[in-house]
Amino acid sequence: MRILVVNVNTTQSMTDTIAETARSAAGPGTEIVALTPLFGAESVEGNYESYLAAVAVMETVRGYPEPFDAVIQAGYGEHGREGLQELLEVPVVDITEAAASIAQFLGHRYSVVTTLDRAVPLIEDRLLLAGLSQRCASVRASGVAVLDLEADPAAAMEAIVLEAEKAVTQDRAEVICLGCGGMAGLDEQVAARTGVPVVDGVAAAVTIAESLVRLGLRTSKVRTYAPPRPKAFRNWPPD
Amino acid sequence: MRILVVNVNTTQSMTDTIAETARSAAGPGTEIVALTPLFGAESVEGNYESYLAAVAVMETVRGYPEPFDAVIQAGYGEHGREGLQELLEVPVVDITEAAASIAQFLGHRYSVVTTLDRAVPLIEDRLLLAGLSQRCASVRASGVAVLDLEADPAAAMEAIVLEAEKAVTQDRAEVICLGCGGMAGLDEQVAARTGVPVVDGVAAAVTIAESLVRLGLRTSKVRTYAPPRPKAFRNWPPD
Amino acid sequence: MRILVVNVNTTQSMTDTIAETARSAAGPGTEIVALTPLFGAESVEGNYESYLAAVAVMETVRGYPEPFDAVIQAGYGEHGREGLQELLEVPVVDITEAAASIAQFLGHRYSVVTTLDRAVPLIEDRLLLAGLSQRCASVRASGVAVLDLEADPAAAMEAIVLEAEKAVTQDRAEVICLGCGGMAGLDEQVAARTGVPVVDGVAAAVTIAESLVRLGLRTSKVRTYAPPRPKAFRNWPPD
Amino acid sequence: MRILVVNVNTTQSMTDTIAETARSAAGPGTEIVALTPLFGAESVEGNYESYLAAVAVMETVRGYPEPFDAVIQAGYGEHGREGLQELLEVPVVDITEAAASIAQFLGHRYSVVTTLDRAVPLIEDRLLLAGLSQRCASVRASGVAVLDLEADPAAAMEAIVLEAEKAVTQDRAEVICLGCGGMAGLDEQVAARTGVPVVDGVAAAVTIAESLVRLGLRTSKVRTYAPPRPKAFRNWPPD
Amino acid sequence: MRILVVNVNTTQSMTDTIAETARSAAGPGTEIVALTPLFGAESVEGNYESYLAAVAVMETVRGYPEPFDAVIQAGYGEHGREGLQELLEVPVVDITEAAASIAQFLGHRYSVVTTLDRAVPLIEDRLLLAGLSQRCASVRASGVAVLDLEADPAAAMEAIVLEAEKAVTQDRAEVICLGCGGMAGLDEQVAARTGVPVVDGVAAAVTIAESLVRLGLRTSKVRTYAPPRPKAFRNWPPD
Amino acid sequence: MRILVVNVNTTQSMTDTIAETARSAAGPGTEIVALTPLFGAESVEGNYESYLAAVAVMETVRGYPEPFDAVIQAGYGEHGREGLQELLEVPVVDITEAAASIAQFLGHRYSVVTTLDRAVPLIEDRLLLAGLSQRCASVRASGVAVLDLEADPAAAMEAIVLEAEKAVTQDRAEVICLGCGGMAGLDEQVAARTGVPVVDGVAAAVTIAESLVRLGLRTSKVRTYAPPRPKAFRNWPPD
Repeated sequence: MRILVVNVNTTQSMTDTIAETARSAAGPGTEIVALTPLFGAESVEGNYESYLAAVAVMETVRGYPEPFDAVIQAGYGEHGREGLQELLEVPVVDITEAAASIAQFLGHRYSVVTTLDRAVPLIEDRLLLAGLSQRCASVRASGVAVLDLEADPAAAMEAIVLEAEKAVTQDRAEVICLGCGGMAGLDEQVAARTGVPVVDGVAAAVTIAESLVRLGLRTSKVRTYAPPRPKAFRNWPPD
Repeated sequence: MRILVVNVNTTQSMTDTIAETARSAAGPGTEIVALTPLFGAESVEGNYESYLAAVAVMETVRGYPEPFDAVIQAGYGEHGREGLQELLEVPVVDITEAAASIAQFLGHRYSVVTTLDRAVPLIEDRLLLAGLSQRCASVRASGVAVLDLEADPAAAMEAIVLEAEKAVTQDRAEVICLGCGGMAGLDEQVAARTGVPVVDGVAAAVTIAESLVRLGLRTSKVRTYAPPRPKAFRNWPPD
Repeated sequence: MRILVVNVNTTQSMTDTIAETARSAAGPGTEIVALTPLFGAESVEGNYESYLAAVAVMETVRGYPEPFDAVIQAGYGEHGREGLQELLEVPVVDITEAAASIAQFLGHRYSVVTTLDRAVPLIEDRLLLAGLSQRCASVRASGVAVLDLEADPAAAMEAIVLEAEKAVTQDRAEVICLGCGGMAGLDEQVAARTGVPVVDGVAAAVTIAESLVRLGLRTSKVRTYAPPRPKAFRNWPPD
Repeated sequence: MRILVVNVNTTQSMTDTIAETARSAAGPGTEIVALTPLFGAESVEGNYESYLAAVAVMETVRGYPEPFDAVIQAGYGEHGREGLQELLEVPVVDITEAAASIAQFLGHRYSVVTTLDRAVPLIEDRLLLAGLSQRCASVRASGVAVLDLEADPAAAMEAIVLEAEKAVTQDRAEVICLGCGGMAGLDEQVAARTGVPVVDGVAAAVTIAESLVRLGLRTSKVRTYAPPRPKAFRNWPPD
Repeated sequence: MRILVVNVNTTQSMTDTIAETARSAAGPGTEIVALTPLFGAESVEGNYESYLAAVAVMETVRGYPEPFDAVIQAGYGEHGREGLQELLEVPVVDITEAAASIAQFLGHRYSVVTTLDRAVPLIEDRLLLAGLSQRCASVRASGVAVLDLEADPAAAMEAIVLEAEKAVTQDRAEVICLGCGGMAGLDEQVAARTGVPVVDGVAAAVTIAESLVRLGLRTSKVRTYAPPRPKAFRNWPPD
Repeated sequence: MRILVVNVNTTQSMTDTIAETARSAAGPGTEIVALTPLFGAESVEGNYESYLAAVAVMETVRGYPEPFDAVIQAGYGEHGREGLQELLEVPVVDITEAAASIAQFLGHRYSVVTTLDRAVPLIEDRLLLAGLSQRCASVRASGVAVLDLEADPAAAMEAIVLEAEKAVTQDRAEVICLGCGGMAGLDEQVAARTGVPVVDGVAAAVTIAESLVRLGLRTSKVRTYAPPRPKAFRNWPPD
């Protein structure tokens, strides 16, 4: 099967990292196609950029010329998953929701460790909408900006581990979710340092997407995610 | 003061209706500037169109050349308000939230009567995020598409009144919110037919926006709605 | 229009402060009539006094001889708003609910800073009933008794600012509501000190009341706030 | 031990019915003293009357000259219990809360069958505040006014049984609470007709009060229910 | 009346302590029969042991040869109460739920102080299922293992008081529940040390059970707790 | 990898059906070992049988002599998953939770269609504990007993489809979960009849378990699911 994994920012090196993690989680027969959005911000760290990314991801997926079996939106706490579900019949998996869903099988409560403080409310809101907030102990910011994950990985790791440890001891989390697509690949090291299971959203999403495809399940089209009604658009898509 | 009222679809006649309602609700010193988005769908009836509208509204407001004191996003149950709040210092008022906030002063529980069945989950989700769902008795669909509100107003009125009455008697609502920007101006007639207060979101939002301006209150910038961080964009905005 | 603003305690100087704040928030055509209850405690700082104030406010409003367009109950976290809504057709606005409703337009979460520790549960309960607690980050006590707000304003300001800052940094509030009618007028100073928007309940309630009147909206009479059924009373009202 | 059972309306025959039920539930060493409020409405069927009753019950209990061990507020869904808890050290039991607490030991979910439609929101609000609403399947109105419970008991019984049956079959309740102090004594007949346990609030409250007294437990005075602070009152109590 | 009080662990001295507390709370006509399970662990401190205890308690009660009027399951936060309710017509009272129900009559919020950290989630889950978590301020672990309550009572008392005080000052609890059947009898001392009411679950359950019996109330049999359907069992009960 | 799939009842033909479904969902390298509990009821349709099954499943898994990589508890709405998580390091997946987690990726809300009315509260309770109830539209009973699923499959299918259709049209579900381990294999037919995605819990659990194993994730051992503390057992396990 072929799974599209779509980054939400336009930094190609981050797409590459995401692709690598996705491939390492994928089963033998799965082809991972990693896409960088056609337009948007070099990193997504707030609502303006996230709404733009939502549209960019949709247009990017619509423009992909080959058939595919599932789509993963590889941004943590971002807008847009519902739009993709309308446009497509194949399953759409958001990494925020995939990580939390997997985490809930591993412990009584989970926490998310993300990048900047301003990202926390976005993640909280997405978990609330997804019906996955009841067992969320906390969403904590490491203070590391998205692009600094690549710029200084060692410092990023220290900051992430520090917050993960607080989540476990102070917030009573038993599982940690890495709250940024750009943290893909850090899970094993954080787990070794904290002693609790650590879920990477991209890896989790790949196995969920494979599961849905294997089970023959597709997005329900009876109401919320019915295809868009045919209608006229003005100045869209951009030339 | 000057308030921008931004339609979410690209149908100019609907912008005109919204503008008229906004002006009738505005105080003497208030100038209403009604804007139609630079791009997008002729009506917004689902997530794909709504995410596109979110971006279009942001770009349209950013392109407005004159100073202004507040912005109203005149789409019911739509995405995007959080992005505007990041971009602007002046208050941003969403008509979904304005209507519900006002309705809560008038009765124990309120219901929303909207257009199509598929719009219901979007409105429910926006009310949930806004912390305004506890006293929401129901969100009901009239089955009237957005553009049919203009095409056959009499039939639309009957369908809306029918659902409003069910909301009052079956769902125990005591107040009705008209759940579509395109329903602006229908409130008095629905109130006369049902015997309960009926809140028009556009009108409610105008008075809320005026209140915020008069009280000297602006969007908090300490965390969620801090200005976007400076960063590079690719292929955006479109030429 | 004429708006009655009713203090909940019998301290005239506090009524005067409330009146002043109300007038500074009111629009040009609005007459503010500030009333002191006919009976009750010099300050309301608990349930016994608050229930007594609920009845005193109702009797005071019933005894007001002139027509009026709206009523504001100017006590924070107090009982009684529902009774006024039964007795009157014009809108009734409680300052606890007005402040929270306005605050929700300005940030992701808000906190309330009130007087004594014992007032906290009353405010929490009123917000819970009003359906406005989901986005409330915390209700914090400054330790300043109601009458000490007037007796030592400088010390009161310090105590309020201290708790407001904790609300922003520890509880992740982005907006502060001043949780006592007697704090009317302190909002600008607290905002300047904390860097977040600060909502005064009395001022907020005035603009909400004006909005409701301008929109032609009145309390729903279909169920909860239908007029009291005619019946015999014993020993009431007191001679 | 001596337990004060305080009616919330001023109809003596209803006080007598309540007293009879209380005595039949009381243990051998318990003296039931039934009190009618010094002032107030002949029946309490809304917020205005309920707030007045809250104050009347408090003044009536304060005026009772003998020592006592517990107080029961015998109005369903009424305001005021928190005020009594401030004034007294002995336990205070509200029949709404007593009935729901007892019902929760008997089945997965319970419903309340009350008098008029307008009483439903009051009861819902009290259960919400009491933290007892999660397992409440519904609050249903029989349409029988309080005083009609005495005027036409047979018709009242039919109406109550009808709603209780709907609660069991449609709302999936497994236990019924009789939602009016004036329904005291009807429990056995409703149970026989519906086949589910039926809880009378007055009887339940008596056994809860006895339990609290026997266990040596009193109202916590550390915060919410600390005694009122000493302060000046104006025109109160009435002469 | 005869009440069976069933310990969940197989330590006879703990059954004796529970029996003593139950007897001191019981009314004059009540016979307390304390039972130790036929099989199971010497202390129950986790899910494995708790599920085993659930079955052991059921089999032990089924094997009791004499008639009885109510059953108390004397384990805090343990599984199994629902099974007993199916098997029996007489009331079943769980001490976790009894303590919380009683605590809610005494203050605005309550906390539970239990044994080990690992018991906290079990208690939280039981309170959630019971609909009694809204007013629970916290569940705190003293770090004292169940059997150490008997081994070193003085140290246990210090640890319990320490957490109880934190619950009152930091978590804003106003009442404390002792969260272990083995803490029976410690309530007075903890209350004296902390200044708030302290509820012992066994004592509370005895008075609740007596109340239910006196009121003639039995477990509802219409749905959830209908008797088990007749069916074949394999290898059960064990010889 | 080897996955143990444990039936909760002792009917071997039902174990066989479950095994068949599990194998059809499993990936190429996965060995499914289906186990029938060593003791217990021929069908599990209530709390007594479910608690017994919880213990039987634990003992059966403990007695399995070979290594394995994950365990699936194949009973819908049953007790016990937490105990297995304590006993094992490998992942444990409950089919109730697996089905709901998968369903949430496919539509806005899901419903469960189960066997008997009495099973509904058990499933509701498990979803509540699992933090998966927010998006559950309803749990509906088909009225088909567990063993009748095999005895009259055609009638069972009709009853299940009827309730599934009501869930979609009346409760606004967009996805259906088949709420009984014994319904394994019916998903495609129900989906074809109703037009919405249908999730089989056993199949969903197999792919979730495979995902967890492939991702190298194991149950967190820091608190809730730490291994049982060493202690003495009386009369257990049975000889």
